Amino acid sequence: MSRFISREAGGFAPYTPGEQPADQQYVKLNTNENPYSPSPRVVEAVSHAQLEKLNLYSDPTCAALCGAIAKRNELASEQVIAGNGSDELLFFAFRAFCGADRAAAYADITYGFYKVWAQFFHLESDIIPLREDFTLHLDDYMDSLGTVFIANPNAPTGMAVPARDIRRLLEANPNRVVVVDEAYVDFGGESCVPLLRDHNNLLIIQTFSKSRSLAGGRIGFAMGSSELIADLNRVKYSFNPYNVNRLSILAGAAAMEDEAYFQTCTAAIRATRARTVRELEALGFTVLPSAANFVFARCGQISGGELYRRLKEAGILVRWFDKPRISDYIRITIGSDEQMEQLTGTLQQLLEKP
Amino acid sequence: MSRFISREAGGFAPYTPGEQPADQQYVKLNTNENPYSPSPRVVEAVSHAQLEKLNLYSDPTCAALCGAIAKRNELASEQVIAGNGSDELLFFAFRAFCGADRAAAYADITYGFYKVWAQFFHLESDIIPLREDFTLHLDDYMDSLGTVFIANPNAPTGMAVPARDIRRLLEANPNRVVVVDEAYVDFGGESCVPLLRDHNNLLIIQTFSKSRSLAGGRIGFAMGSSELIADLNRVKYSFNPYNVNRLSILAGAAAMEDEAYFQTCTAAIRATRARTVRELEALGFTVLPSAANFVFARCGQISGGELYRRLKEAGILVRWFDKPRISDYIRITIGSDEQMEQLTGTLQQLLEKP
Repeated sequence: MSRFISREAGGFAPYTPGEQPADQQYVKLNTNENPYSPSPRVVEAVSHAQLEKLNLYSDPTCAALCGAIAKRNELASEQVIAGNGSDELLFFAFRAFCGADRAAAYADITYGFYKVWAQFFHLESDIIPLREDFTLHLDDYMDSLGTVFIANPNAPTGMAVPARDIRRLLEANPNRVVVVDEAYVDFGGESCVPLLRDHNNLLIIQTFSKSRSLAGGRIGFAMGSSELIADLNRVKYSFNPYNVNRLSILAGAAAMEDEAYFQTCTAAIRATRARTVRELEALGFTVLPSAANFVFARCGQISGGELYRRLKEAGILVRWFDKPRISDYIRITIGSDEQMEQLTGTLQQLLEKP
Repeated sequence: MSRFISREAGGFAPYTPGEQPADQQYVKLNTNENPYSPSPRVVEAVSHAQLEKLNLYSDPTCAALCGAIAKRNELASEQVIAGNGSDELLFFAFRAFCGADRAAAYADITYGFYKVWAQFFHLESDIIPLREDFTLHLDDYMDSLGTVFIANPNAPTGMAVPARDIRRLLEANPNRVVVVDEAYVDFGGESCVPLLRDHNNLLIIQTFSKSRSLAGGRIGFAMGSSELIADLNRVKYSFNPYNVNRLSILAGAAAMEDEAYFQTCTAAIRATRARTVRELEALGFTVLPSAANFVFARCGQISGGELYRRLKEAGILVRWFDKPRISDYIRITIGSDEQMEQLTGTLQQLLEKP
């Protein structure tokens, strides 16, 4: 930090994204990317003709993209806002719905950025522990403070809660916003989108990074009542109005319209996940029940940190969090069948060595 | 605003970007876009093969892009950070270098977003009037408060100050950060990049949106001492680490490497600007001396608001600011020669009518 940095910006630890080492080619199972290329329609949509129009600003309302999202989710366009990845929309939600008199409530083990954004905005955090078995109980949030942030499925556990549990929270708390981060929902979770009809305090955030194979396009979106979306737009227009670039608007709309490709890819990942879980369990791993495109697993023999290091030496990157309660686990992205065979083969070798 | 919005997010007016009406095709001279397509190298760089890799995250360090920027400006890579448009980097600078005990100093007539960001972060603003003739005098900033933000050339006036004036400010204020927003510098301003060698309190922000024909790619960058850039990275990693998408990293690097194309396009715009100024003056307009890709002009006969409306009716969009001191002026982007001939032809007709 320089001597010029403000007290506000310097007082807390930023987020650490999954490593992207350039020293060699790894089997990269550490950032929950989709192993499959985006829909061929995405490749068509970003044509030469469109590239030649990059001198023009993108549509700040992202009408084509929000329209495609709204159509698929049977919502009005005014119920959707797009962003530069779901991180940007979560950031907007922290600003719009939290403040000096409104805390942020979230789990002790969840997406690590919630804590960072709470600190960015100098919020009080009401941190609610997952149960011993890593299950999240909405009952524990009934008397929590401020705005609730729930990742469903949760990260890095991969475990999901049913939408009916979130409905109970919404019904009991009509005067608080509940933000449901559905980044991983398309791999087996239950979306809360149907609850939007009855609950104007529900905000759902999703992303194109995982199930739509567009991590590199940086496209996230939020869905909610038109009033909540207007609040997020207020933050956006106080920060960076042209927040989604022209090519990502095109790519996102094309990806959202290719339902068949989406269904094929997500089904393939679910099938690979089922096989991977079986093989990990056969190797003696404890694997938490995952509804996401990753699994969170613990090896009885080798500590999480050691396993992470040995896999990296063997050319395979997974994610390890050196944090209380979960330091024995590693988070493994579900890649292609070939990648997962490399992983389980390597693990077998590692576990055979003393 | 919903009943859920925080006091922090709801208490001020967001920025209003230039209108993008969809009702008809306009000659669009209202958002300072470049009339020329991006470099052919940009179109090549965003290949099918690259589109098929969009399932992978972008490099959060934007190494290829920052490397190209550093090379052209004879800086180290650590002295450069890229962002989702220069707006994002200015936002980062407001957070990194201003706070409860550090105000933001900027002109009364300048880029309208400075005030919005100051309000977003609840900063004290030290607003320093331009002189009567719209010139900006650095002497007026010597005793100003906090971090200084100077658009050079200024917007919407288009008027520039020489780098030696900014050098005097830097020398007299070694304990304050001076942010120079050079969004329009490539059209005739004098860049402060050479001052980086001697001044670790200088931060320069530029964009690919204007002189590099990539407004739709959303790419901005900041240059400064490695310490100041580290501070901006700290804010970035507390907000949205993957802030530039894969395609924009490729497009930006390719655009930065095509120096010949850049020189050709900026020279063409300067030539068109000179012609446009002559024709506007022949029509009786007062035109402020512009070093940017727009001119700020006042018609003696018709008020700024009225002129804006009549031009819009005639199919030409310009920007009008209903604000003290400048409400008689319109801001006109320098487009292609054909676009400017349409503008001056239309103005001639409007001024002939009673």
